[in-house]
Amino acid sequence: MCSETQKAIVLLSGGLDSATVLGIAQKTGFRCYCMTFRYGQRHAIEIEAAKRIAAVNSVIEHRLIDLDLAQFGGSALTDHDLDVPKNRQNLENSDSEIPITYVPARNTIFLSYALAWAEVLGISDIFIGVNMTDYSGYPDCRAEFIEAFQNMANLATAAAVEGKAKYKIHTPIIKMSKAEIIKHGTAIGVDYSITHSCYAPDAKGRPCGQCDSCKLRLKGFAEADLTDPVEYSNDS
Amino acid sequence: MCSETQKAIVLLSGGLDSATVLGIAQKTGFRCYCMTFRYGQRHAIEIEAAKRIAAVNSVIEHRLIDLDLAQFGGSALTDHDLDVPKNRQNLENSDSEIPITYVPARNTIFLSYALAWAEVLGISDIFIGVNMTDYSGYPDCRAEFIEAFQNMANLATAAAVEGKAKYKIHTPIIKMSKAEIIKHGTAIGVDYSITHSCYAPDAKGRPCGQCDSCKLRLKGFAEADLTDPVEYSNDS
Repeated sequence: MCSETQKAIVLLSGGLDSATVLGIAQKTGFRCYCMTFRYGQRHAIEIEAAKRIAAVNSVIEHRLIDLDLAQFGGSALTDHDLDVPKNRQNLENSDSEIPITYVPARNTIFLSYALAWAEVLGISDIFIGVNMTDYSGYPDCRAEFIEAFQNMANLATAAAVEGKAKYKIHTPIIKMSKAEIIKHGTAIGVDYSITHSCYAPDAKGRPCGQCDSCKLRLKGFAEADLTDPVEYSNDS
Repeated sequence: MCSETQKAIVLLSGGLDSATVLGIAQKTGFRCYCMTFRYGQRHAIEIEAAKRIAAVNSVIEHRLIDLDLAQFGGSALTDHDLDVPKNRQNLENSDSEIPITYVPARNTIFLSYALAWAEVLGISDIFIGVNMTDYSGYPDCRAEFIEAFQNMANLATAAAVEGKAKYKIHTPIIKMSKAEIIKHGTAIGVDYSITHSCYAPDAKGRPCGQCDSCKLRLKGFAEADLTDPVEYSNDS
């Protein structure tokens, strides 16, 4: 446990992983400030899920940040001309196979904004729901990237140079499998019914059940012997 | 010299330093893509200067990025309730004296965007006009910060992990005095008449001559035995 007055910034996407990370941060005793990015992702449903999660968990503040990452292109998550892959067989990517859903420098940009807000608020602790097990294909979800970012952060800001802050990037779920995340989150009371994980929801906003993200989520619930409380699209 | 086809991203603020850095990058043989940020700085005049500099130097593309750093507060450059200091005596800041014009995590955020664009364009070289001599007060202008960012960048992107890019953050003026920057820039043909350095220009957009940035610029021209070609405010 941390001290009662300790504050943290939590990056909240609206998905299962970051909802679990918020639960872990709060359970550890942190008073949380959440940050969600509208970055040209295909579906605003994620943002609505993040708002619900922040509200249900009574976070101190929830900040929405608009970023135009779509202008750079190069990702199926922001470029409507690229198809989100469905029903792929091998969900565990190797380092040499980076998924088309990768968004260039996304976590670097997200963490940079979190660092700016942390400095202004006088906060040293930043939580992010990166995970190496299921998505080793994303370079900016690896522990070595997080460590390098933390090292850079401690040289980047006035607060660090003046000795007022020593930044720590917390990655509590980085080595967990999806099933472990779901089991742990369920044990600490995370409400997965209000999270959204799908890359390609239907017109009613229901998850497709077929994209990589849905497949990993469903596999995780199955392996955890739990039922996913969200309603999937009829097409799936 | 680099090869004729080598491309670079140059962060262009519209000021004297970044105009010089663009000149150096082009002189080295790089074909340049420029990036300018509208981040809630008090004056849009800087942006207009950046546009002129990009146009005059026929860069391949000039990208303007909107960032709302003002929402975080904490800097005289983005917060209209804070005064830009004028006529300070000691312009060389020590590490323990960070100026109120510091913007939290600014260069971290700028370089993160440059990294995203670099990855999409297949570029490995990024130029930034940071300078330690005149502004040691800004933590994110120091060589150790740049080195840590470069190290992080080489772990952050798909291009780096796949061996397609090895990022280098070029800081050609980091150790130069303002006079040396101006002398070198003048020698390679940088047109300083279209640059803008002032933190607090008058209603006609003319530099005040009194803020830290104007004072450093004027001192630099004086020490270089050259005349600053820009017209200063009559009030100065």
